[in-house]
Amino acid sequence: MSNNRVVRLASRPVGMVVRDNFEVAEEDMPEPGEGEFRVKVAYISLDPAMRGWVAEGRSYVPPVQIGATMRAFAAGYVEASNHADYKEGEAVIGLFGVQHYAISDGNNVVKANTSLAPLEAWVGGLGMPGVTAYFGLLEVGEAREGDTVVVSAASGAVGSIVGQIAKIKGCRAVGIAGGPEKCAYIVDELGFDAAIDYKNEDLREAIKRTCPDGIDVNFENVGGEIMDAVLGRMNTFGRVAICGMISMYNSTEPPKALANLRSILVNRLKVRGFIVFDFVEKYGEALQTLGKWHAEGKLKLRQDVRDGGIEAFPDVLNLLYTGGNFGKLVLKV
Amino acid sequence: MSNNRVVRLASRPVGMVVRDNFEVAEEDMPEPGEGEFRVKVAYISLDPAMRGWVAEGRSYVPPVQIGATMRAFAAGYVEASNHADYKEGEAVIGLFGVQHYAISDGNNVVKANTSLAPLEAWVGGLGMPGVTAYFGLLEVGEAREGDTVVVSAASGAVGSIVGQIAKIKGCRAVGIAGGPEKCAYIVDELGFDAAIDYKNEDLREAIKRTCPDGIDVNFENVGGEIMDAVLGRMNTFGRVAICGMISMYNSTEPPKALANLRSILVNRLKVRGFIVFDFVEKYGEALQTLGKWHAEGKLKLRQDVRDGGIEAFPDVLNLLYTGGNFGKLVLKV
Repeated sequence: MSNNRVVRLASRPVGMVVRDNFEVAEEDMPEPGEGEFRVKVAYISLDPAMRGWVAEGRSYVPPVQIGATMRAFAAGYVEASNHADYKEGEAVIGLFGVQHYAISDGNNVVKANTSLAPLEAWVGGLGMPGVTAYFGLLEVGEAREGDTVVVSAASGAVGSIVGQIAKIKGCRAVGIAGGPEKCAYIVDELGFDAAIDYKNEDLREAIKRTCPDGIDVNFENVGGEIMDAVLGRMNTFGRVAICGMISMYNSTEPPKALANLRSILVNRLKVRGFIVFDFVEKYGEALQTLGKWHAEGKLKLRQDVRDGGIEAFPDVLNLLYTGGNFGKLVLKV
Repeated sequence: MSNNRVVRLASRPVGMVVRDNFEVAEEDMPEPGEGEFRVKVAYISLDPAMRGWVAEGRSYVPPVQIGATMRAFAAGYVEASNHADYKEGEAVIGLFGVQHYAISDGNNVVKANTSLAPLEAWVGGLGMPGVTAYFGLLEVGEAREGDTVVVSAASGAVGSIVGQIAKIKGCRAVGIAGGPEKCAYIVDELGFDAAIDYKNEDLREAIKRTCPDGIDVNFENVGGEIMDAVLGRMNTFGRVAICGMISMYNSTEPPKALANLRSILVNRLKVRGFIVFDFVEKYGEALQTLGKWHAEGKLKLRQDVRDGGIEAFPDVLNLLYTGGNFGKLVLKV
């Protein structure tokens, strides 16, 4: 019987992730106990949050410990089961880690309906980005028919789904992205109503032009000046769902003050930060809906599936931070 | 039959309010139509929001027009009624304006139970400050038993009630105020658990010392550096109810960036701006509860009732901005 192969965190990265931060190790094949099952991992999701998971210090989830298997969402097939609800051959997704085989008790595991989308899509667009967009827009942002929704980083894995869900729900979807290609992509291919090229347009004027009735929901991925400009055009009782503030993560300059912070008070905005783990009990519901929309052709996904196995994990992960991918990054095991 | 006397807005103030911004005028005694009643105004509430009401430009309520009666909450007695629900002699509070007599159709009028508190209290601590504190803490801030609540401008009309309601609800109440006297007042007289003197203490250290288990609810009246320091100690899923940002209103320096803005994301905070008008349909419920607490001795109010009639309105209003009052400012008509 073959062994398990795992990627462990060897040291905490300083700045960019390097190969030596991880090590590949052999372990005995794990055997499921009572009420458990074994998953043979097929696809691993690569997500920007991973950089935070390997950093020390207080954050929203405990950091991966040195010597522990690297945390990751993954999709695979049940291989051996002592769990009544999971049968051999079933496709599942969950936090299985960067390894060939994982043991699970079914907690926070979701079954992947491969008749709606192929397995890799369930850790691609339908995985973390899909559920992040779904709950962020509909629960945190409380988007309703007729609302104007503005999303930043709109051509990204999450932003591209936010705008498409907004359209499915009868909203006006406006995306902020950098450069004419990304802007054309979200309007022409994904069906956004309008795009703002923050690299080549005056933000405030472009927001005014594309949001003539103001903004009801801001799905914020970027923070900083982009968020500030959007705040200045929010409608009364608008909602701001803060999913990320990537403009602040790598900046070496001190942040500028938000000129429109007072909009929160004057317009009685609800500003709420969230992470996708907060909704883990409802992933199943969201994924079922997202899968259905995808199967109906209403939700387009773009995945960038890489070969190389788990040994390629550090290099493929870095593509996220160097902009080397176009579409949701997935590693094939 | 006597005439009505009214204070009208004569011109928009630039900087501080001056006497010439208002004029006193005589009008015919107003007569109630079908479904209306006339109120003889006895006490007028003076509130910081008034400076905003006389300013031009988009805000949360339309500005008072030049030549119009100055807007104000007031308390008085029904004098003549063609309205089935309001009888002569009943005590009422509502947006009756700075004048001797007002006509109302009962919309957003609340009856004042003078067996629980004297009439002036219903535009004093139990008026705008009371309902602002009530809804801001309990609905926007979602304060629950066991929470740590931090309120800024804690010795003020709203802040002093926020801390007392927090105590009634079984929370830990920490107030931020300027100077040892105000700090002693909120702890010794109002029963706050702790006070922070932002003028004489290191804010961050004092917050750490007084909030050993972090902060669940921030009732924010000040904004700026005080809010920033509080954000840095918020617990996961904490709430920030933004009632005011007075630190920004008169500042001539550009605002500093909030160093802890990312706390909204990492701690998944709900930050929500509100104004008391948003809850106008539920004033009655809040006032009944506040009056009961006051009658039971659980809620201490400090009112500063000034004589001089409506002619004194501009001078008395200015006390709010020069710090010339101690306690909720009320003008006796």
